[in-house]
Formats: sequence, C-alpha cells, structure tokens
Amino acid sequence: MNTNLSMFADLYQFTMMYGYYKTGKMDDEVAFDLFFRKNPFQNGYTIAAGLETVIQYIQNLSFSESEIEFLKSTGIFQDERFFDYLKNLSFTGDLYAVPEGTIVFPNEPIIKVKTRLFEAQFIETALLTQIGHQSLIATKANRMVKVSKGKPILEFGARRAQGVESAVLGSRAAIIGGCSSTSNVKAGKEFNLMISGTHAHSWIMSFESELEAFRSYAELFPDQLILLVDTYDTLKSGLPNAIKIFKQVFKKHGKPQKYGIRLDSGDLAYLSKKARESLDQSGFYDAIIVASNELDEYTIRELESQDAKIDAYGVGTKLITAYDQPALGCVYKLASEKINNKWVPKIKRSENPEKITNPCLKKVVRFVNEDKNEALVDLIMLEDEKIPSQPFEVFDPIHTWKRKIVQQCKWFELLQPIYLKGGLVYQSPSISEIVDNVKENLDQFSKEHKRFSKPHVYHVDLSQKLWDMKMKLLAEIK
Amino acid sequence: MNTNLSMFADLYQFTMMYGYYKTGKMDDEVAFDLFFRKNPFQNGYTIAAGLETVIQYIQNLSFSESEIEFLKSTGIFQDERFFDYLKNLSFTGDLYAVPEGTIVFPNEPIIKVKTRLFEAQFIETALLTQIGHQSLIATKANRMVKVSKGKPILEFGARRAQGVESAVLGSRAAIIGGCSSTSNVKAGKEFNLMISGTHAHSWIMSFESELEAFRSYAELFPDQLILLVDTYDTLKSGLPNAIKIFKQVFKKHGKPQKYGIRLDSGDLAYLSKKARESLDQSGFYDAIIVASNELDEYTIRELESQDAKIDAYGVGTKLITAYDQPALGCVYKLASEKINNKWVPKIKRSENPEKITNPCLKKVVRFVNEDKNEALVDLIMLEDEKIPSQPFEVFDPIHTWKRKIVQQCKWFELLQPIYLKGGLVYQSPSISEIVDNVKENLDQFSKEHKRFSKPHVYHVDLSQKLWDMKMKLLAEIK
Repeated sequence: MNTNLSMFADLYQFTMMYGYYKTGKMDDEVAFDLFFRKNPFQNGYTIAAGLETVIQYIQNLSFSESEIEFLKSTGIFQDERFFDYLKNLSFTGDLYAVPEGTIVFPNEPIIKVKTRLFEAQFIETALLTQIGHQSLIATKANRMVKVSKGKPILEFGARRAQGVESAVLGSRAAIIGGCSSTSNVKAGKEFNLMISGTHAHSWIMSFESELEAFRSYAELFPDQLILLVDTYDTLKSGLPNAIKIFKQVFKKHGKPQKYGIRLDSGDLAYLSKKARESLDQSGFYDAIIVASNELDEYTIRELESQDAKIDAYGVGTKLITAYDQPALGCVYKLASEKINNKWVPKIKRSENPEKITNPCLKKVVRFVNEDKNEALVDLIMLEDEKIPSQPFEVFDPIHTWKRKIVQQCKWFELLQPIYLKGGLVYQSPSISEIVDNVKENLDQFSKEHKRFSKPHVYHVDLSQKLWDMKMKLLAEIK
Repeated sequence: MNTNLSMFADLYQFTMMYGYYKTGKMDDEVAFDLFFRKNPFQNGYTIAAGLETVIQYIQNLSFSESEIEFLKSTGIFQDERFFDYLKNLSFTGDLYAVPEGTIVFPNEPIIKVKTRLFEAQFIETALLTQIGHQSLIATKANRMVKVSKGKPILEFGARRAQGVESAVLGSRAAIIGGCSSTSNVKAGKEFNLMISGTHAHSWIMSFESELEAFRSYAELFPDQLILLVDTYDTLKSGLPNAIKIFKQVFKKHGKPQKYGIRLDSGDLAYLSKKARESLDQSGFYDAIIVASNELDEYTIRELESQDAKIDAYGVGTKLITAYDQPALGCVYKLASEKINNKWVPKIKRSENPEKITNPCLKKVVRFVNEDKNEALVDLIMLEDEKIPSQPFEVFDPIHTWKRKIVQQCKWFELLQPIYLKGGLVYQSPSISEIVDNVKENLDQFSKEHKRFSKPHVYHVDLSQKLWDMKMKLLAEIK
C-alpha cells in the first residue's frame, strides 16, 4: 500500500487550491483540526489508528505528468502556472497527531495541521479517509476483545471487506484493537502480523469422504490441527470423525502442538457444549473449540453468558466492515488563520449546535489521577496557554454548571509532533508497540468508562479561555 | 489500483493449496460458483460489478521473491517444491462471469470458475472481496437513483469510505449504479468518470466575510457557480449573499452555464422551499439547489414526497459504505470435481437449509417475454442441458408447488466466457457501456420487481434435472 495517492482528493480541494492561488491566499498559514463527533457503536471511547498510512501518504505526495495532464483536461483551471505549484507540492508545515493506539474522545483534535493553506486544504480527504476507517475498525475489534473473557479473537474478514486495501488495513487495525491474529496473508506480510488459518469446506468436499479429508489434513499438519466439522453434519459426522483422527494422530505423532475443531454454523452454544463433552470423554481435554459464523460482540457476549465451551472466536464481516456503523464520520475544520502575522481564530456555526466548531490553535491535555492512575478529564486549551496549577475547576462546555475539581493529577499532551517545518520528526512504532500503547492507555481509564453497555461519558472540556473565545466569536456572527 | 494482489488471500488458501499439492490433487479439475444468498437493502435485485478488477487481479497474478520468502518464513510449508509451483502460478482455466451492470439474483452463479483445484482455490478471497464490495455499492447507488425522480445523484463519499481503494472503486460502482458524477478525482482519472465539486466551508471561513468569499469564488468560476450557503446561517446570511453575487455575476459576465446553491445542514425540505422562493423572487428561476448532509435513499424519497425544491442530491457516507448493510456476503462454493475424467457433482449440506449449495456444472438462463420484453424467470440448469422447447413448466426449488409456464420467451445465458484455457477472451466495456447495460437490463424487469418497497420476488428456479440431482445427493449424505 505504498502507492502514490496524490490524486486521492475531492475535486473541490483542487478548485479551492486554485482559488487560494488566484486570490493570493495560498501561503497563508492556517490550522486545521481533525476530529470526530461521536464514539462509534455506543462505545465509551475510540482507539486512534491510521497515522502510519497518513505519514506514507504525505511522504509520497507528488503529481505525475499524466496526473497533471488529467487535471488540465478538466478545463477547470485556466491559469497554467497553478500546475507548477501542484508539481512542486509537498508538505512544508507542522503536523501533530495522537500516536496510534491512543484512547481518544469526541471533539478533541486527534490531528492538528499547521501549514500553508494550499497544502492544508489539499490533504483533507486522504487524512479523513485513513484515520476514520482505521480508528473505526480498531475500536470495533476492541469491543469484541472486551467481551471475550480473554479468549482470542481471530480476524477472518478479508473476503467481506470493502475491497482489498480495506481488508489489509482493516486487519492491521483489528490487531491494534486487540485481535490475536488475522487470516489475511497480505496484511501479515506488510505489517508483520500473526497470521492463522487452516482449511475450508472445499477441502472436505474435494475428498470422497470427510474422514479421508481430515486424515489427509492431519498427515500434512499434525501439529496445527483445527478441523472444520460442519460440512455435512456437525454432531453426527464432523465431530466423531475429528475424534477418530485425533486418536490416530496421538498414536502416530503424539500430542499436537495445537488441535481441535472449528464450528461454523448452527447453534454455537449448544454445539460447543456437545463437542466439549465428546472431546473430554475421549480424553482430548485440551482440544480447542473455535467458533465462527457472523459473530459480533453481541453474539460473543451472549455465548460467553451461556457458558458456551468456545476457546477462540473467528470474526469476519461484522468486524472488517464495522457492520453496525461502517463510518466514524471524521471531520477536518479550519480553526485559525494567520492574518498580518497574527493568528485569527475561526469558527463554523451551524443549525445543529453539536456541529459548531472549536476555534483557535489548541492543545489537548489529559489529566490523570496520580494515586489511581485514572484519567479524569481531557482539557482542550489554547496552544500557548499555561497548564493551570492544581487544584483547579473544569466545566462541561454545554452544561456549564457541571463542574469538577482537578487535583493530584499528572498530565500529558495527547498531540505529538509528527512533522515540523515539513520534516518528519516521528518514528512510527511497531505493531506490538502500538498494541502495548492501547493497553497502557486503557489502563488509565476506569471500568465505568470502559464498560460495554452504557459506559460513563468521559469529560472533554474546554479551558475557560478557549470557551470564552468561542462564545465571543459566536456572539460576533450576525 | 494495478498493484499485484497475489498475496491477498486467507492463509487457509495457502495451506489448502499445499495440501492439494501434497495429496496429488492440485491438478484435479474443479468448478466453483460465486454467488450471494440475499439481495442487499431489501432491494428486488442486485447489480453485478467488480469484474474489471477481478480481471486485473488475475492478469497480474505472480509472487515476488520477498513474498515467497515471507511464506517460507511462516514455517507452515515443509516441502520446498511447493514454492516452485507458487512461483509459476497463473490462471490456466476457464472463468465465466456476468458482465458488469447485469441484474442478478440470489443463489445464481455470477462467476463460474473451472480450472485446476490449485488455482481455483487460491483466487477465492480476492474474487469474493472485489465482486462483493462493488456489486453492493452499485446496488446501493441504484436505489438512490430510483427514488430521486430523475434528479442527479452526486457521489461525495471519498472521505468516509473504508480506505482509499474502497473510495475509488466505490465511486466507479456508484457511477455504474446510476450516479451522475463523483467528487473523487483519483477515481475520475482511473476510470474516466465525470467529476464534480465546488468548495467547502473552509473556503468561506478563510475569508473575512462570507460575501467576500462568494465574490472571490465567483470571479474565478463564474460559469460553475454553486455556492455553499450554510457556513453561518443559511437563510439570514448564505442565501441573501449568494443572491447578491448572482446579480453581480449576471451584470458582469451574463448568465453562468450553471449556478445555484448547496444546502448542507438543517431542514432541507424547508430550506430548499425558502431558497427557491427567494431565488425565484430575484428572477433566478434556473439557479439550482443542491442538497447534501447524510442523505440516503429513504431521506431522498422523503424529501421528494414533501416536494422539496431540490435539483440534485450529494450523497456521501451512506452510499460509499452501503451504510445499512456494508457487506453483500458473497460465497464461493465447490460445485463439481473431475474424478477419473468424469465430473462428479459436489454439495455442501448445512443446518440452515438456505445454506445448502447447488451442485454440478451449471449455466444460468434468463427467459424474457418477447411481447412485453419482461424477464419471467432465471433458470439454473446443468451446463450441458438443452434449453427446453416452450411452453414448459418451472417450479420454485423450495416450495415446489409454486409453478409457472414459460412461453413466448426469448432467452440468453447470463454467464459469459471471460477466460478460456487461461486466455483472456473478454474485452472489458467502457464505463458508459456498463451504465447502458444496467439500463437495458433494468428495462427487462417489471415495475413490481424494481419497486422500492417490498418488491416482487423474482423467480430463480432449478431445472428439473438439477433439482433431481440435488435431492439425490442430499439423500445420499448419511
């Protein structure tokens, strides 16, 4: 996925860039914030992901001759010098972002872009697409991990994804969210992910009998022996055949490193219990039972609450497409513009109050109780504002009577420098470092904030100065 | 999107290929069917799409050294000669498919692969992903087109797609489904699609006032003048400012080729009527009103039923992600295997009756009433079965008492040869030819089958011979 994606932008980015060029505004310094307005899936938080592909995108920004020719052919851009600026386009400014795996919340900037209007405008589409998609899948995966009581969640969704790239980057995001492995070999290679998989129904069907298919498979893979038992009849055929094979393998090769069955249809709670009984009766206490078939976090939770005898869950469609909410809905809004060498805050009003933007150059500071190591509030502040000395009071930006005292807290800024003056100053962490980051981040939140159903709403407040500025600007709009 | 996707497969495809190699089955000839089990979105039909990328995928099949090394490093494949077969992998058999834009129905094969088991198994994942995704989006787009009463549907979803490729191929599918244009420049270039777009809120916000922003825009694009009017206040600010600008432009340049406003928030029915009134009062009868903001086919239908004064709809998230059903759920099932030079039918049973597969080498024949040019039934037949002479009777494969006489019908086969003996024998049509194909296809279906709500269920039946064979095989499974 290293291809040059420079042409990936909405047409209006190009028309606006042309407009900024023609009106002499292209070099104006501006600040844009990327954020989302609501946690997906009624989850209490969102896991940020996608920064690595954003960096790749920015590193590879450049237009080929044929791309320039295509843009010329649209007839939209009359002034040919515009294309010279496009040809020389690269990212020359600052970009701050939360590292992948950071727990984030609605309305706080997860990327802040501070650069020339020309390029800040241009990168909007690609940033939104990549961060939105990958954060969504990471969060969805984490919901499944949350309810599986420590049992591995295996990502199996490649065939049901919205295209190949969506499957590959989705696998990576699923691992970030806590999945143990993916079936997607391309993703495994590109991102160094654990891959897993055994065989499909077609393997069974291509042999004269199920037993023969199992036996052949066992001879080839005696140490990784997960047999799919539902091609003809799970309890009457698949399971007894699998047990026969396990006996043969134990006799011939000894105990496999890993062995068991996969259930892929029918009543998984019932079948898993029946299968567990039969396996145990034959002495195969450590044979594992993998279950799949349109699983999502709700079904997994249901199965766990029924004490289903399932040791690992394979999830496909519902994870890789984030089935019940397939878009996070990230937005990218102008927050400030440097006019006559002075930063001027910008705001967008809206009929829908939740769509009013937060103006100004900002930073996001997380305050974490030192004793409990428990996050108390994220405070969105002016970029140059001093961190107040504790104790101090914060308040909900809408229901301003909701107030809270911040004390005995350590704090840190969420947004880290990724680009400074066009130079990449950030070393992307490995996948396992990102996975660790998720765990460390989650450790800093209370059970109530992480709860599966109706979680506590985490506080994201504005500093008094920012709030005052926002109110002032809203009052000024006629 | 021409990259080599050879590594894009579930790991179990590789383990099974290894198994087929080790058990001497790799060269067995087999037939697989690709199909889906349910029309998406409760629509009465599905529009097939994705064949062009499937062809690209097959044309580019080949493993690089680093890919082979990666597979070796997994430690799963003990016999090194396997990798020589992988290195030489190419598609050597036959592949039949319905052309893009064909109207298709549940359970009928839309791709039939007839080749060596080794390669037939391998291509499963990529075929499912590409056909599933693109057919889904084409169908979703068509639902929006269906309810908009001829008003253009503009695809705006790039930023909300599940990744860049999903946005690009989704745009193409949206155009196949009937959208008029896309905002996605990359898709426009790669597939020769009409692109459209004007400006965003950030354009307005980057100027000192809305009026100044409009004026600058109008000076640059006096002939493509769609002004976004909701940055501050649609009726109090955006609309009167737009009208001022239109007056100035008319005076200075004459009437623009295209001009109007875009509404992007608030009550679109109400605002469009208010806007229409004001524009008409100022004499701008042909100013168009574009509406956007989380639109889907239900909202568009609602707006139309309220006689909203909207001339074009911009749709984003809900189309590009197929929001209410983000996966079609295509499957790929073994139908037959050549054993001792004789084709042996294969079937998969299931606890869920709808998941039982149709065995045998098959063809799909559509019977269309000659007088009315109206499709009557799709008949799935044995590949070598003769088309019966009319009149003849067909019957529902589940409720066999539901019968129907086929008479005075022309017929044609849905599956066309794409590859024969590994050679590409198909010339992919242009996008406009595919769009025409959709129209011609839809013309052959009754209004009841195309109805938006609770459409007639179109008959997809099995020939008597195929049905008999299926019953026989089911009875034989112990």
